[in-house]
Amino acid sequence: MHKIAKDQAMSGHDDQVITGAQALVATLADNGVSACFANPGTSEMHLVTALDGEPRIRSVLCLFEGVATGAADGFARVSGVPAMTLLHLGAGYMNGGANLHNAKRAHTPVINVVGDHAVAHLKYDAPLTSNIVGLAGPNSTWIKSADKVGDTGRLASEAFAASYGPKPGPVTLLLPADAAWDEGGVTGDVVTPSPLRAVPAVKIEAAAAAIKAASQPVVLINGSALGTAGLDAAARLKTAGVRIMTDTFYARMRRGAGVFAPERMQYFAEGAMADLDGSDLMVVAGTSLPVAFFAYPDKPSLLVPEGCETFILGGPDSDSATALSQLADALGATDRAAVEVLNLPEMPAGELNAVSVGQSLARHMPEDALVSDDGVSNGLMCYLPTQAARPHDWMMLTGGAIGQGMPLALGAAIAAPDRKVICLSGDGAGMYTVQALWSMAREGADVTTIVFVNHSYRILNIELYRTGAGNPGPTAKDMLSIGRPDIDWVALSQAMGVPAVEATTAESFDTALDHAMATPGPHLIAARVPG
Amino acid sequence: MHKIAKDQAMSGHDDQVITGAQALVATLADNGVSACFANPGTSEMHLVTALDGEPRIRSVLCLFEGVATGAADGFARVSGVPAMTLLHLGAGYMNGGANLHNAKRAHTPVINVVGDHAVAHLKYDAPLTSNIVGLAGPNSTWIKSADKVGDTGRLASEAFAASYGPKPGPVTLLLPADAAWDEGGVTGDVVTPSPLRAVPAVKIEAAAAAIKAASQPVVLINGSALGTAGLDAAARLKTAGVRIMTDTFYARMRRGAGVFAPERMQYFAEGAMADLDGSDLMVVAGTSLPVAFFAYPDKPSLLVPEGCETFILGGPDSDSATALSQLADALGATDRAAVEVLNLPEMPAGELNAVSVGQSLARHMPEDALVSDDGVSNGLMCYLPTQAARPHDWMMLTGGAIGQGMPLALGAAIAAPDRKVICLSGDGAGMYTVQALWSMAREGADVTTIVFVNHSYRILNIELYRTGAGNPGPTAKDMLSIGRPDIDWVALSQAMGVPAVEATTAESFDTALDHAMATPGPHLIAARVPG
Repeated sequence: MHKIAKDQAMSGHDDQVITGAQALVATLADNGVSACFANPGTSEMHLVTALDGEPRIRSVLCLFEGVATGAADGFARVSGVPAMTLLHLGAGYMNGGANLHNAKRAHTPVINVVGDHAVAHLKYDAPLTSNIVGLAGPNSTWIKSADKVGDTGRLASEAFAASYGPKPGPVTLLLPADAAWDEGGVTGDVVTPSPLRAVPAVKIEAAAAAIKAASQPVVLINGSALGTAGLDAAARLKTAGVRIMTDTFYARMRRGAGVFAPERMQYFAEGAMADLDGSDLMVVAGTSLPVAFFAYPDKPSLLVPEGCETFILGGPDSDSATALSQLADALGATDRAAVEVLNLPEMPAGELNAVSVGQSLARHMPEDALVSDDGVSNGLMCYLPTQAARPHDWMMLTGGAIGQGMPLALGAAIAAPDRKVICLSGDGAGMYTVQALWSMAREGADVTTIVFVNHSYRILNIELYRTGAGNPGPTAKDMLSIGRPDIDWVALSQAMGVPAVEATTAESFDTALDHAMATPGPHLIAARVPG
Repeated sequence: MHKIAKDQAMSGHDDQVITGAQALVATLADNGVSACFANPGTSEMHLVTALDGEPRIRSVLCLFEGVATGAADGFARVSGVPAMTLLHLGAGYMNGGANLHNAKRAHTPVINVVGDHAVAHLKYDAPLTSNIVGLAGPNSTWIKSADKVGDTGRLASEAFAASYGPKPGPVTLLLPADAAWDEGGVTGDVVTPSPLRAVPAVKIEAAAAAIKAASQPVVLINGSALGTAGLDAAARLKTAGVRIMTDTFYARMRRGAGVFAPERMQYFAEGAMADLDGSDLMVVAGTSLPVAFFAYPDKPSLLVPEGCETFILGGPDSDSATALSQLADALGATDRAAVEVLNLPEMPAGELNAVSVGQSLARHMPEDALVSDDGVSNGLMCYLPTQAARPHDWMMLTGGAIGQGMPLALGAAIAAPDRKVICLSGDGAGMYTVQALWSMAREGADVTTIVFVNHSYRILNIELYRTGAGNPGPTAKDMLSIGRPDIDWVALSQAMGVPAVEATTAESFDTALDHAMATPGPHLIAARVPG
């Protein structure tokens, strides 16, 4: 950890008496934290007033904690700097838990500040008391409780650094109410977080040798390799006869015109295995060996063909962008494979479906748009037509807990107010965290949410068949359908302050999207697609 | 555990080959489980088809897991029999976690069935893998994983029994996908759950002696003591010079005309302490010693006056109804204090507020109505005017995690389709689990939801002051206000299929409630009350 001179970092707190909450908040602000996604309760009142006095942090109220945690994930994916969340005891943490699972799987730094009862009050087992460390531990890469007022700043520094690594991800700092309200807070240091792990030269050489010896090598990339520099290196590797693929789901990738487009691993295990047939070497950079999302009777879990050698260049905590570049150097690959050439489709016509939505997206997405993809069964069909759209960033659900799309888009919009954010959400997925719309309205977030309305958990109808669970009877069908009653997404969105329209044809969707792209602020388009 | 003959219990499963999922579901049905509140995913497809073939269990789809768990709590509070939830891995469990915290604090039996990856798939750490036992442990009174197909029925029996005790509460049974889909399931026994713990005679005698020796004794009651028999015993105790109080929050109490009405412990610590001033003995029956909901600077945690003796007759797992009756016998108390006499207010007029809402409730609630109170700062003012209404049951938020009201009401309505259910919800509280409205619409649940619309976390404005966190500045005010934009509750409700009206005066509310009480099925009244 690198320390800078106290008087540069402390914003003048040294000479005034501050509370523990103020020390915590000032320390995070000193370290560059600029957003707090909050759902406070009584035990966080002193944190609320500390935030009130901290102009460097923008506080965004969320009506449900899963919105706050998903937004913090989106904020960090876009800005590269963790946001803070403000959660109310164990119950508040759990409400935010599913999107923290997703953030952990995306390796996104997030700093969860969880208010707890005053230390002396804990032994009385008051109604909201719970084992917060137990609940939050599994999805925290670091967890501590600032039980003493003098420790809140120091632990805030530690939490900030820990969110970056050694394993990037969500960290949890408990703040008991008395440590928050007591005076005697001391701000912590400004710290320099650990960089991503460098891949040793000897590994680069060994991987290069293995690739030279292979007849059909594939390199599976993720993490920093999906940025501009990493994809440029990947384009060089490609000319050395290497097949380049990304994981099925990744946190964020640059794509569109001018960018090299790797292949994408298929979601269904049988498809992925057929596609990889003949590969005799798999090198992974910035990720792990690919595995099936779920197990199915008599289908493989590990998506590596029999006889295919594997080579782990570096895991999710490694600097895969640099590693790829070094690997290309080692292979003497100086040429670059072709990048995408801008190709904007004609206006689609007729039936509205995921493909026509993707075509309209390709037509209207402005340069540097940010896409939050929680489109579930409709996501892939939007992904393909946008490959040669204007350059943009695509963000995905890496942890499989649907309900991430809108919160992630909210956080992305707060992080990059000058960029257009597009959210793709299934209707089932959207209902988990629909409260995000209200925060978008309140913040004037420039997010256009496209909900694929098919009144169905469509992916589960596919999975029911694939798991061999038999022909669905009426109860099973009912459990996979979210119609009866159909949800009126336009009314739902407007009720929370986000202007909304329904689109039922490819043409009307194209017009609605064109309008939304031209008009700043939140929008929702309810896209009626086949079930 | 009492076992009955296999051939009576097994519904003929012995002679057919069944899956692990079928064995689990059949065992719960054999034991009397008749409802499943479900939000399934891929790993639960075989459970879905097993439920499809089980006519004894009504499956209710919920669009968010917090609705499912809150509904299971409500179902068991009303029926006395646990419901099953169906949750998707660790992320699904966490989404349902806050209302399981509440159920644990209400000592309600709930059987959570959480699908997990196939056992052999776990080691690959697929995206949705998490430490489910770690996440679910803190809020589970019992937790096991049915890793082998042959164990699913046996563990379902065990889970059923464990939900009743020794400590009643939510239990968690993990079902790996392969144990669900494999054939070779064996149904488990029909079991007789543990009864509530009997209070030993020697303790009854000692408590009676202490009461006789005290000058101002108070008995704090909760649990089974809040049913008809327990309150009858409490009315006898009252004539023996004992002050009878309930906890501030309880799971369920019988009240209204013909029922003895205990006092209710005040929420704010300073009020409760002032009220208890002079008490020299506190006996608790069916609960623990009272503690402040939160800690505040320089305020007490334990709500027992200095010098007041305490006597624990029995905790939440004790049969407090019987204990009270035995205590009354030991004190020779044969007379009964007065019960409430039916007193229906005149139609309120003018400003709509919690008191006028309470008056309208008292006027229109039919006999045996079930009230789910998540009204936060407006709850108490509705509670008081209904004390002499037609006899009904009142259910409260015992765990402090707001967002319980609508889910609990849904579950209550499924448990008692012939009773009218009334839900009181703050607008902030309602937004946590607003998806419950959709399930109410789908199931035709006879629930009238009253949302107190003040566009504010009003309780937090009070708590900000009480915690001494200072005068709120604009950021703090913004964190406690849920206006900007105002939520249109009528549109929100209608979007999910529940007919809704807004009421802005006492008269229009009274008319709307009268209509809702007369018309079966779900309704929502957005009651505009002062902020």
